Amino acid sequence: MSAEKTTIRPLRIALFGFGTVGSSVARILTEMKPEGLELTHVFNRNVARKKVDWVGADVVWSENADEVLNSGADVIVELMGGLDPAGGWIERALASGKSVVTANKKLIAYRGLELEKLAAEKGGHIKYGAAVAGGIPVIPGLEQGLAGDKVDRIEGILNGTCNFILSEMEQGAPFEPTLKEAQARGYAEADPTEDVGGFDARAKLAILMRLAMRVHVNPDEIEPRPITAVTPIDFSYARDLGCTIRQISRAERVGGHIAASVGPTLVPLASPIAWSREMMNMVLVSGHYGGDVIFSGHGAGGTPTAVAVVSDLIALAHGSRRVEIPSEKAAIGTESEIAHYIRFRVKDRPGIVADIAGALAKEKINIHAIVQKPGYSGEDLPFVVTVEPCKSSALKRALDAIKKNNYLIDDPLDMQILSA
Amino acid sequence: MSAEKTTIRPLRIALFGFGTVGSSVARILTEMKPEGLELTHVFNRNVARKKVDWVGADVVWSENADEVLNSGADVIVELMGGLDPAGGWIERALASGKSVVTANKKLIAYRGLELEKLAAEKGGHIKYGAAVAGGIPVIPGLEQGLAGDKVDRIEGILNGTCNFILSEMEQGAPFEPTLKEAQARGYAEADPTEDVGGFDARAKLAILMRLAMRVHVNPDEIEPRPITAVTPIDFSYARDLGCTIRQISRAERVGGHIAASVGPTLVPLASPIAWSREMMNMVLVSGHYGGDVIFSGHGAGGTPTAVAVVSDLIALAHGSRRVEIPSEKAAIGTESEIAHYIRFRVKDRPGIVADIAGALAKEKINIHAIVQKPGYSGEDLPFVVTVEPCKSSALKRALDAIKKNNYLIDDPLDMQILSA
Repeated sequence: MSAEKTTIRPLRIALFGFGTVGSSVARILTEMKPEGLELTHVFNRNVARKKVDWVGADVVWSENADEVLNSGADVIVELMGGLDPAGGWIERALASGKSVVTANKKLIAYRGLELEKLAAEKGGHIKYGAAVAGGIPVIPGLEQGLAGDKVDRIEGILNGTCNFILSEMEQGAPFEPTLKEAQARGYAEADPTEDVGGFDARAKLAILMRLAMRVHVNPDEIEPRPITAVTPIDFSYARDLGCTIRQISRAERVGGHIAASVGPTLVPLASPIAWSREMMNMVLVSGHYGGDVIFSGHGAGGTPTAVAVVSDLIALAHGSRRVEIPSEKAAIGTESEIAHYIRFRVKDRPGIVADIAGALAKEKINIHAIVQKPGYSGEDLPFVVTVEPCKSSALKRALDAIKKNNYLIDDPLDMQILSA
Repeated sequence: MSAEKTTIRPLRIALFGFGTVGSSVARILTEMKPEGLELTHVFNRNVARKKVDWVGADVVWSENADEVLNSGADVIVELMGGLDPAGGWIERALASGKSVVTANKKLIAYRGLELEKLAAEKGGHIKYGAAVAGGIPVIPGLEQGLAGDKVDRIEGILNGTCNFILSEMEQGAPFEPTLKEAQARGYAEADPTEDVGGFDARAKLAILMRLAMRVHVNPDEIEPRPITAVTPIDFSYARDLGCTIRQISRAERVGGHIAASVGPTLVPLASPIAWSREMMNMVLVSGHYGGDVIFSGHGAGGTPTAVAVVSDLIALAHGSRRVEIPSEKAAIGTESEIAHYIRFRVKDRPGIVADIAGALAKEKINIHAIVQKPGYSGEDLPFVVTVEPCKSSALKRALDAIKKNNYLIDDPLDMQILSA
C-alpha cells in the first residue's frame, strides 16, 4: 500500500446497461477486484436474458430502474446512451446525492454543465472519462495534466467507425461494402447516421472544447459534413497531394472567436494524425505553453471503454475529484481560414476550368493547384482544385455559383486540408 | 463557473528554484492567473540575480530555505532536482503538513513511496506530474484514466536529449558534434552522463513501472546501456533493416517476473515509436483490457514542464487527490526474450563468421540475418548479425567468448530490436 485508504466501505455500484461495455465493466471488476469497489446491481430491460454466472451471487439483477435508483447503490454507472431516459435517471441519481459515472457523450455534450452543477449541489460527483475516445485518457489528461496550459487548438479522430471505413477505403475498398463490413463486425449501428454523419464526433468535440478550450458551446452550432460523399477517386487524388482522408473534428481560437468543424478532411501523410488506422482514435491538443500533445489508442470497443469507466470508479473510491475548470458560454463565432480540396465530376467541354476559376476569383479565393489524372472518360471526368486558405462560407458561395452550370454531374465535394 | 469552489483562500505557493522551469511556472501563474493559486515565495541561491519585475510585488525572494519552509506557504514547488538537499526540504515540508509539487524524477524514483506515505500521515499531498515526460500528461493519464487496466508492458522515449542526438544522427550527423550542439542549445548538461548514460531515463521508467505496472523496483537494478557507442554506420545498417535507432526504456511482465531495460534500440520505422523526433517524448502503455495507448509531445523544456507543475497545483487547489494505486515491491527478476542487432568491427580474415556463428550456437541463439554492406575496407570492416529473440545474458556470454579473438577492432555493439 502506498497510502492510507480514503474509503471505509466499498462503493456500491449499479450498472445501468449490460451490453458490450456494461458486461466488460463487470468483467474487469470481477477479475481485477479493485479495492473499494463492489458491484451490487445490474439494470437492463429484459434482464433475464442478460444474466451471467461469473459475477457475484449477491448482485441484484433488475429491470426496474426505480428499484435500482432507490437502492443503497452509491454510484450509478450509466451505459445506455442517448438523452432519454438516461438523462432522467442520472438526474434522479445525482439529486439523491449518488455519484454517476457515464460514457454518454450526447448527454454530457448537451447537459454536462447542468448535471455537474447538480452533482456539486447535492454532494455527489459525475465523471465521464469514457465519453470521449474510450480507453484513451484524454479527459483525465486534460483535467489533471493540461489545466495549466491555454489550449488554442484541438484536432482529432473521435469516431472509430468513420476511421475504420476511411482507412479501409485508403486501401482501395469502396464505401458501401466497407460500411456493411463495419456493421457486421459490430463497429457501426444499423442506422449509421450518428457516426458517418458526424453527429457522434461533434458531441465529443463539444466536450473537449469545454475541458480544453474552456468554452461551452451548443453542439448543434457545429454543422457536421458526412463522410458518405468520399469516393475511391478522392483517395487517389489525395495520395497525389501527399495526403490521406480522415474524419477530423477540429476547433480553434481565431482572433478571439471560436471556430469548429467536423467532416472528412485531407490529412498530410507526414502528420501524426495520418497514423491512425482502423478503429483507433487520436487527439492532438495544441497548447500555448506546452506545444502539441498527442493521445492515441483504441477509442471504442467494450473493454477499452470499460477501462475508462472502471478508472473513473477507482478515482471516486480513492477520493479523487474532477478538476472543475471554469468555462465560458460561447457561440461558434467564426470559421477557420484553411486550405480546401474540391473535387468536381463533370461532363467535359471547353471553358470549365475558366468558369470555376472565375467563380473562385469573384470570392477572392486563390487557386493553389488544379490536378487532373489521366484515364477517365470525358463523359464523367473527375478533377480536383485545391485552394489557398479561405473561409468555408466564401467557398460555399463560389461553389453555389458553379453548381448553376450544367456541366456538373453531381455536387462538388469540398474538404478541408490540414496543414502538415 | 461549472461548480462551486472547493477552496476558500488561494493556495500560497513557494517556488524552490527559479531556473528555466521555475521562471516558466511563475510566468504561467502571472499570465493565466488560475483561480485558487497565489505565488508568495521564491527561493534560489544568490536570489538577487534571479529577481524579475513581472511577478507580484508581494512575492518574497529568499536565499534562505529555512525561512521559506517555515513561512505560511501551503505548497512547496521543488524544481532544484537531485536527491540532496531537495529531498530534505521536501521531507520537512511534508512533515509540517504542507503539500509538495515536484519535477524531481530521481527523488521520486528512489524515495517516492516513502514521501507519499509521509504526506498521507501528515495530511498533505505530493504530486509529481512533471517528473516523467514533462508536458505530456502520462502520470495523470495512468493514475486517473488507466487505473482500471492491468498494464503488461511499457515502452517509451523518456529522455529528450538522447532523442535529439539520435534523431539528428539519423539525418547523418555524427555523435560528438551533435552532443555539443545539444549542450549549446541547453538540451544537455555540461556533464551529459545522466542523459546519454541512461540514468535519467531509468529513474523515469521506475516511476512509470510503479504507477502503470504497480511494481516498486530499485532503479539501480535496471542496468542502462549508454547511447555513446552508436555510430552513423549503425543508422545505415538499421535503415537496411527497416529500422531507426532510439533510446528506449522498456518494462514488461514475463511469466510472473519483471523485465526492464534502458538503452539504444532498433525501432521499426512502421512503429509509432519511430515517429518521435528531436526533443519529443513518447510513452506506449499496453493494457490487458484496453490495448495500446500512446502519449506523445514535448517531454522537456521550461514551459511544457511548467504546464505539468501548474496543472498539479490547479488539481490541488480544486481538491483533486492523487489516485494512490497500491504497488508491490519487486525485483527485476528476468529478461525479455527479444531480437538483437550486433554490429562487429573486424580486421577481415577467413573464418570470422563461422567463429561468431559457433559462439552463438553454443548459447542456442539462432542467427536471423548477416548483413555486410559493400564499400568498407577489410582493415576495418563493419558488419551486422541479427539474432532471433533471446535473453541478453545468453548473448553476453556468446559475445564474451567472441571478444577473446584478435580480429575484433573494438567491442561489438549489441542493441535490442523492438517488434513492429
